[in-house]
Amino acid sequence: MPPAKPRPLPAKSLLPKINQMLYGGDYNPEQWPEETWREDMRLMREAGVNLVSIGIFAWAKLQPREKTCSFGWLDRLMDLLAENGIYANLATATASPPPWMSKYPGLNAVDGKGHVWAHGSRQHYSPFSTVYRRFAAALVRKLATRYRSHPALALWHINNEYACHVQECHSEAATAAFRIWLKARYGSIEGLNDAWGTAFWSQHYQDWDEVLTPRHTPTFPNPCQVLDYHRFMSDAILDLCKMERDILRAITPDIPVNTNFMGCFKPLDYWKWAREIDFTSWDAYPDPLTERPELFDACGHDLLRSLKPGRPFVLMEQCSSHVNWRPVNAAKPPGVMRLWSLQSVARGADGVLFFQWRQSLAGAEKFHGAMVQNGSQPGQGRVFREVCELGADLGKLAPVVGSVIRSKVAIMIDWQSWWALESPSKPAQFHYEKAFSQIQRLCFDRNIAVDFVHPGSDLSGYSLVFAPNLYLLEKQSADNLDAFVRNGGTLLVTCFSGIVDREERIVPGGYPAYLRETLGIAVEEWWPLGPEQRMPVRFGRRSLHARDWRETIHLRGAKALATFAGDHLAGSPAVTRNRRGAGQAYYLGMQMDDPDLAHLLDPIFSRLKLAAPVRAPAGVEVTLRENSRAKFLFLLNHKETAARIPLGAHQGTDLLTGAKARAAITLEPHGAAVIALAIT
Amino acid sequence: MPPAKPRPLPAKSLLPKINQMLYGGDYNPEQWPEETWREDMRLMREAGVNLVSIGIFAWAKLQPREKTCSFGWLDRLMDLLAENGIYANLATATASPPPWMSKYPGLNAVDGKGHVWAHGSRQHYSPFSTVYRRFAAALVRKLATRYRSHPALALWHINNEYACHVQECHSEAATAAFRIWLKARYGSIEGLNDAWGTAFWSQHYQDWDEVLTPRHTPTFPNPCQVLDYHRFMSDAILDLCKMERDILRAITPDIPVNTNFMGCFKPLDYWKWAREIDFTSWDAYPDPLTERPELFDACGHDLLRSLKPGRPFVLMEQCSSHVNWRPVNAAKPPGVMRLWSLQSVARGADGVLFFQWRQSLAGAEKFHGAMVQNGSQPGQGRVFREVCELGADLGKLAPVVGSVIRSKVAIMIDWQSWWALESPSKPAQFHYEKAFSQIQRLCFDRNIAVDFVHPGSDLSGYSLVFAPNLYLLEKQSADNLDAFVRNGGTLLVTCFSGIVDREERIVPGGYPAYLRETLGIAVEEWWPLGPEQRMPVRFGRRSLHARDWRETIHLRGAKALATFAGDHLAGSPAVTRNRRGAGQAYYLGMQMDDPDLAHLLDPIFSRLKLAAPVRAPAGVEVTLRENSRAKFLFLLNHKETAARIPLGAHQGTDLLTGAKARAAITLEPHGAAVIALAIT
Amino acid sequence: MPPAKPRPLPAKSLLPKINQMLYGGDYNPEQWPEETWREDMRLMREAGVNLVSIGIFAWAKLQPREKTCSFGWLDRLMDLLAENGIYANLATATASPPPWMSKYPGLNAVDGKGHVWAHGSRQHYSPFSTVYRRFAAALVRKLATRYRSHPALALWHINNEYACHVQECHSEAATAAFRIWLKARYGSIEGLNDAWGTAFWSQHYQDWDEVLTPRHTPTFPNPCQVLDYHRFMSDAILDLCKMERDILRAITPDIPVNTNFMGCFKPLDYWKWAREIDFTSWDAYPDPLTERPELFDACGHDLLRSLKPGRPFVLMEQCSSHVNWRPVNAAKPPGVMRLWSLQSVARGADGVLFFQWRQSLAGAEKFHGAMVQNGSQPGQGRVFREVCELGADLGKLAPVVGSVIRSKVAIMIDWQSWWALESPSKPAQFHYEKAFSQIQRLCFDRNIAVDFVHPGSDLSGYSLVFAPNLYLLEKQSADNLDAFVRNGGTLLVTCFSGIVDREERIVPGGYPAYLRETLGIAVEEWWPLGPEQRMPVRFGRRSLHARDWRETIHLRGAKALATFAGDHLAGSPAVTRNRRGAGQAYYLGMQMDDPDLAHLLDPIFSRLKLAAPVRAPAGVEVTLRENSRAKFLFLLNHKETAARIPLGAHQGTDLLTGAKARAAITLEPHGAAVIALAIT
Repeated sequence: MPPAKPRPLPAKSLLPKINQMLYGGDYNPEQWPEETWREDMRLMREAGVNLVSIGIFAWAKLQPREKTCSFGWLDRLMDLLAENGIYANLATATASPPPWMSKYPGLNAVDGKGHVWAHGSRQHYSPFSTVYRRFAAALVRKLATRYRSHPALALWHINNEYACHVQECHSEAATAAFRIWLKARYGSIEGLNDAWGTAFWSQHYQDWDEVLTPRHTPTFPNPCQVLDYHRFMSDAILDLCKMERDILRAITPDIPVNTNFMGCFKPLDYWKWAREIDFTSWDAYPDPLTERPELFDACGHDLLRSLKPGRPFVLMEQCSSHVNWRPVNAAKPPGVMRLWSLQSVARGADGVLFFQWRQSLAGAEKFHGAMVQNGSQPGQGRVFREVCELGADLGKLAPVVGSVIRSKVAIMIDWQSWWALESPSKPAQFHYEKAFSQIQRLCFDRNIAVDFVHPGSDLSGYSLVFAPNLYLLEKQSADNLDAFVRNGGTLLVTCFSGIVDREERIVPGGYPAYLRETLGIAVEEWWPLGPEQRMPVRFGRRSLHARDWRETIHLRGAKALATFAGDHLAGSPAVTRNRRGAGQAYYLGMQMDDPDLAHLLDPIFSRLKLAAPVRAPAGVEVTLRENSRAKFLFLLNHKETAARIPLGAHQGTDLLTGAKARAAITLEPHGAAVIALAIT
Repeated sequence: MPPAKPRPLPAKSLLPKINQMLYGGDYNPEQWPEETWREDMRLMREAGVNLVSIGIFAWAKLQPREKTCSFGWLDRLMDLLAENGIYANLATATASPPPWMSKYPGLNAVDGKGHVWAHGSRQHYSPFSTVYRRFAAALVRKLATRYRSHPALALWHINNEYACHVQECHSEAATAAFRIWLKARYGSIEGLNDAWGTAFWSQHYQDWDEVLTPRHTPTFPNPCQVLDYHRFMSDAILDLCKMERDILRAITPDIPVNTNFMGCFKPLDYWKWAREIDFTSWDAYPDPLTERPELFDACGHDLLRSLKPGRPFVLMEQCSSHVNWRPVNAAKPPGVMRLWSLQSVARGADGVLFFQWRQSLAGAEKFHGAMVQNGSQPGQGRVFREVCELGADLGKLAPVVGSVIRSKVAIMIDWQSWWALESPSKPAQFHYEKAFSQIQRLCFDRNIAVDFVHPGSDLSGYSLVFAPNLYLLEKQSADNLDAFVRNGGTLLVTCFSGIVDREERIVPGGYPAYLRETLGIAVEEWWPLGPEQRMPVRFGRRSLHARDWRETIHLRGAKALATFAGDHLAGSPAVTRNRRGAGQAYYLGMQMDDPDLAHLLDPIFSRLKLAAPVRAPAGVEVTLRENSRAKFLFLLNHKETAARIPLGAHQGTDLLTGAKARAAITLEPHGAAVIALAIT
Repeated sequence: MPPAKPRPLPAKSLLPKINQMLYGGDYNPEQWPEETWREDMRLMREAGVNLVSIGIFAWAKLQPREKTCSFGWLDRLMDLLAENGIYANLATATASPPPWMSKYPGLNAVDGKGHVWAHGSRQHYSPFSTVYRRFAAALVRKLATRYRSHPALALWHINNEYACHVQECHSEAATAAFRIWLKARYGSIEGLNDAWGTAFWSQHYQDWDEVLTPRHTPTFPNPCQVLDYHRFMSDAILDLCKMERDILRAITPDIPVNTNFMGCFKPLDYWKWAREIDFTSWDAYPDPLTERPELFDACGHDLLRSLKPGRPFVLMEQCSSHVNWRPVNAAKPPGVMRLWSLQSVARGADGVLFFQWRQSLAGAEKFHGAMVQNGSQPGQGRVFREVCELGADLGKLAPVVGSVIRSKVAIMIDWQSWWALESPSKPAQFHYEKAFSQIQRLCFDRNIAVDFVHPGSDLSGYSLVFAPNLYLLEKQSADNLDAFVRNGGTLLVTCFSGIVDREERIVPGGYPAYLRETLGIAVEEWWPLGPEQRMPVRFGRRSLHARDWRETIHLRGAKALATFAGDHLAGSPAVTRNRRGAGQAYYLGMQMDDPDLAHLLDPIFSRLKLAAPVRAPAGVEVTLRENSRAKFLFLLNHKETAARIPLGAHQGTDLLTGAKARAAITLEPHGAAVIALAIT
């Protein structure tokens, strides 16, 4: 399911009502008396807030009893926002049903051992509960009807962080729904038996009602059953989202709908999901204690931007300082929140929002940072000061709104491969996110713009496509890659790709199955390595090292660029290149650490003339956004020391300071610049 | 609930019938034929035993069938003890109900995922089972009635190690009881909603029957729900204890009642528990494989002594050599059991007992050491020899009975803070016991006597009070601390204190909430550190290091004694001191390793002239017990080499050897002395 | 239950129909269309296959619905095999019941927390389901009746890898069966109470229906209950096996029956199991990533050979290259599969089979290596080439068939000790397999042949018997050992032996209980060490080290050969020797690393003149198989370099090459030779 052309937007910005960078956060004022709301309005205006997400966890306030709804407080809140020129990202409030609803059997989800999830935190509902669906639909209809014409309404926020906690359900209703889904997919029970390979381990089903969700089995469950269950759960939860969207679109056709994604998130196939909403957004929580936290965000931003090609995304949640759900929750040092906020814009965001506006005094997230924190008087303190400064910065970036990033490099990712690859009973333990984020990171470190693409995406605009660990590869996707190569593209496939087809069935006779001709090779065997093992690889005069994995590769037209050494694989190809049509196809039969992989990739980047917009020192991120009128050069210094960046021909005005940028620009530690370049 | 004045004792000793150090152990003779009992009596007399705990796991022997009781064997046992001049700490035998009782639904406890605990080990009963309560009450009543006048009866042992294994129950009865407890606490469901902050995450309850014990939720449960569940469970189990106590006191008003505590044990609020029994006792099992095992005991002894101020406690269980429930159960080398036994007396114990008298031949504790071990013939072997020697030593310490320890230093601990601090969704993972035991250890290493106090305790007798990690702090407790300072006391509060009030609700506007004025500071932000991170702290000319945690502290009258360095916090206060009224209040905005913390504390100890009774080399423990007639100087050498301790003015007679101690005394490796000093 | 004399075989080989080394693998052709079968036949003949295991997971194919059986495909398969001269190891197909059977309540096993295992993988059935037993018996009867006279039928394969995944069941039927088993063992409930020591912890049972399988208890369950549950489960699963065997033997008395064991596998008492089948076989999966993988196989082979003394075993499953159920599944480098296959023959196997013939395209084992792998065209590739070469090698080893290994050294192992020793609540954590495999390894490294023996085995043929960690030791077993010593044997007992009797009840008065006189010692105390601790041991002039464990040993006639040093145990015996009758009995009161233990054992080996058949360099394995006509010297080079082995007097012909071997032979890396020596 390649990304479709998005529905046209009624304006150049994502939200017709707001022609500037979106700025704000989750706002849960139901936790405070209404006099506090007025203080909130004043402070929001001070901070430059123009959009707040409201009602996300308000179901119990909106419908305190099964037959009692209470919209008065929300009416007053919406009016207050409108009076203050602040728009609402109005949530459908379905993310956490009220406790009274749990009295209905089947309302709560059931885990793989049959334990029912209890209410008392959030997201405990079963996506298969008809009661949940009925109550949710009714609530959404009421909200849409009530606020359809409210001047504050700018955007619908469907549910919240779908599948964040509950990614499986094994209730009777879930099992029944799985059977229906399977029936639709396979037609007959024999179709399912064929697909799942039930001839092995005596798993043959005679009737649909024998089929279960994969649960508590003595050993490895059927792999295709597991894969189908992943597909099914992603679809089933998406079905909830579409149900709400359809109601909203029917009543408020002009108000965009959105739901917040979770970045590189395995449980949901965001390629499918992104088709169903008007633009993408995500909640980004890098851990400041990791070595280079900016990498986490960069990869997520690139994915989110790619899910709906040509359309900016929104950073729907981030924290002002620290979260509270890790064992240790380090805070962002001064300046870092601004830097990482601008990074999201640099990589394609048209809005920056926080969880949450005012820090809770009670409940499970009271130690999660906020725009207005508890350690100071409201409107005071370091964090609020930085929040205000960021609001001012974003205000200056209005010209950037709607501009896009043009990439010549793409990384192919596929949720089907992700699910299948990381299921049990494999030759070794693969980590799909590690594989694709390593490629993304190597591009990031070179300031080469990179998109993510679907196996069915139109690849014609790219010079170079990476396909890391594309374990499950359908014939038509392979054909897409082959055509890309024949038309002049450069393809780089990494190990253990093209192993299985759509039903996780091995394609026999040598790997990577449908790509053998494209790559000019046949892989016969795999040689997983122990966790600490490193085996030498000869690459010209260099000695590099393989880790985790090696393969026996036979050349069928390709040439070996590097060979293994050190044991029985000595002399056997490790990296190959095949010239095909107007293009070239590379294959890497191993895994490598970053510096070693860089030695292999840099010559390819060079040959394809893929380079950063400007040459910046290590630690300085450079991106380019552009529209028909201008280009915007983003320069972000992730280092704790100042950095001088020579601009070459790229001169213009720094939108943040108004200063002219000529031959070079110097960024403070954690500093940033956004230079508007005239299109030449 | 500060400690109340204890019920007066009818004698200077804890047990009116025994005016000497209590000595003995758990005695479970129902495992042997009665001829073995006679051998036991002979050996007990040889060992100097005067008290044995009997019947602790005898319910199934006393009531082998629901309607059949069998007291004959216990009659004979009690008579035999009386004949031999040995007293009984008679257990109520309710710690482990017989298997036949499990046929009653609801008898067994239920874990958080709904699994019912099975009989077959011990303590599987639900504290909320009315059947259990009914059978337990009947048994206690029968025992008390039958043995009320028996000459061997010296003490009642209620149940055993409450909550040792089962600390939660989520049965329907437990849930119902939780609702009743909450109703009593909050009055109305809206009161509960306010307290728990259910406005967040859509947790608003409309009716009591929607409220659950905190169980199997997809993510963090409501924090105040968790805190209340801790309070509730501690209360509910205490209620069982009180039920038994009331029966016993009604029938045998002159026999003291006790139940054995578990030391620094989080599940039960021992401040509350200690009020309900006549004296405290605990079961101490230091691990000889830890670096300095004597620290574990020292902290436990100090707590147990403090729970009932002015009254000695009893070491109710220890092992003669090794336990059997750790992965590796190292044994105490020769001499160590004696040393640690005397340590308990040195820190306030008036009795030393073991688990158990005779080592079992079968069952789950047959590899737990005992006074009479299986590896030798009864009455022989190293362990029994040391048991006899200890009996003789304790016999010489009769003059010490009833004497107390006078401390000028106190450490405040509060189970509410413990429970709340260690619940999930915090800025970092705190370990309350590590925090208070670090302070205790630094005092121990200086041989400065220290008490534990409750936030509501009378502090007027102390010079110095520590309040480590007092996360939950009610206003009236803060007022108690403030008054202590204004009246001339020195207070030292450590980081992340005074954050929340009684319902775990943040007190906004800067921390430590109700102590800001006392401390003359306002804390705005927290900066948790990674597990391996160390950040520099400037303290005069010294460079110390913070670990785990730092804070942004604003001075509001206090002075900075030390400052952070090395990053954006450079120059910001790390340690502050505020002069207030006649006293001083210190604040530590970080955590530190022992040696660094010592640099901060030693000047305070010096200023307050807090020092050891005598100056002893490192590794030698010194304490002072006193009564109106004498002082007893305890000297304990924890080292494997001899130690010479100069006594200065403290001369007297070593009760253990009868030797006069003059200018100095030399202790063998693991040696000890108890010098009786005339009060001067 | 010592090993009984095996039922006589009707021929010198295990299978009357095949008078050569058995060669083949699991064959699951129901996964492919029948045209593929014909390709399989051709390739099998090419590879030299003479036996395939069929139908192991075919229940759902044979009985797709409850009342529908489908044998047509199996008829055709059997005919095809017969046509091609390949024999069938025909499985009873009961290892994995079809999904339709799960509709019967109680069909599926239940874990200790009450979760029912689901179908969807394999082996989910409860051994206590009467429905399962009924369907299984019916199927076995049908198969035996149908194929009783089929020319392809050579062997019955009962079920498959019993207890591989499901080793416990706590269903109501399991609990009822446990009670019946206990009743048969103990006669009365008081008998059970005595045996289990229920007088402790109030566990006394008044009625059988109160007794449970050991499940979800708050702390340690009753140890003898746990031990009995192990015995019961081993017996109950064996009962399934015997039920099938009895049906098969009744219908096909001349066809041998077998079931594949799992090597050194704790759940099943293979001493008991081996009595019930005609010969033993096992599935051997060494991990190539371990340091010396050949050790794993060597120990398993020695055990399997010993389970049925004097009769060869079969290597029923191994992998051609790699498995797929470890986190990382390294493949065997070229030559290693052959080497390890020949190793099995060297240690007593008369057959080498694989899992599986053709690699699956789907299902949970599609990444498990096979004789015909997916990465190549069928009949091509490295693995198939090596499979063919091995077939040729084995063909040359027909003379070896039926020959045996004669050992003068034995290691005593007992499943009762294993189960009891590794149950919780012990002085330290023992690993029984580590203990006995360490002794086996030291013999292996010296190429000294070693058998395993049961405590009740006839020991008269041995010079040296090891009894490592024989924790549970019955009086009559001790008498067996004592007689062995008195008759001139050398016995070596290691620490923590002879502690408990049959009901895991301590034998008091000094250890090792019934062996005290034999050993001339009495052990009084144990001193477990921390995981990193090493304590010095003086042995003559050498300084060795104890790890994990030390003991206080009193000499009662024995002499100390080594003593502890370094702490309070200094000078205390660590190793003792007792002369008794015509023999000697050694005791080791500690654990040691291999090199240290070797210093103690080598003098004993020397004294008893126990040595390798030829002196080979380290890394070269040497064994000797013999029959009445010839001896076969196996030489296996486990090193990656060539090795030269001087043959001395052992000259003959290498069966693999046909070359004469004289003064010495040189083996390539991973090379092997099988030299037929004339009996002199």
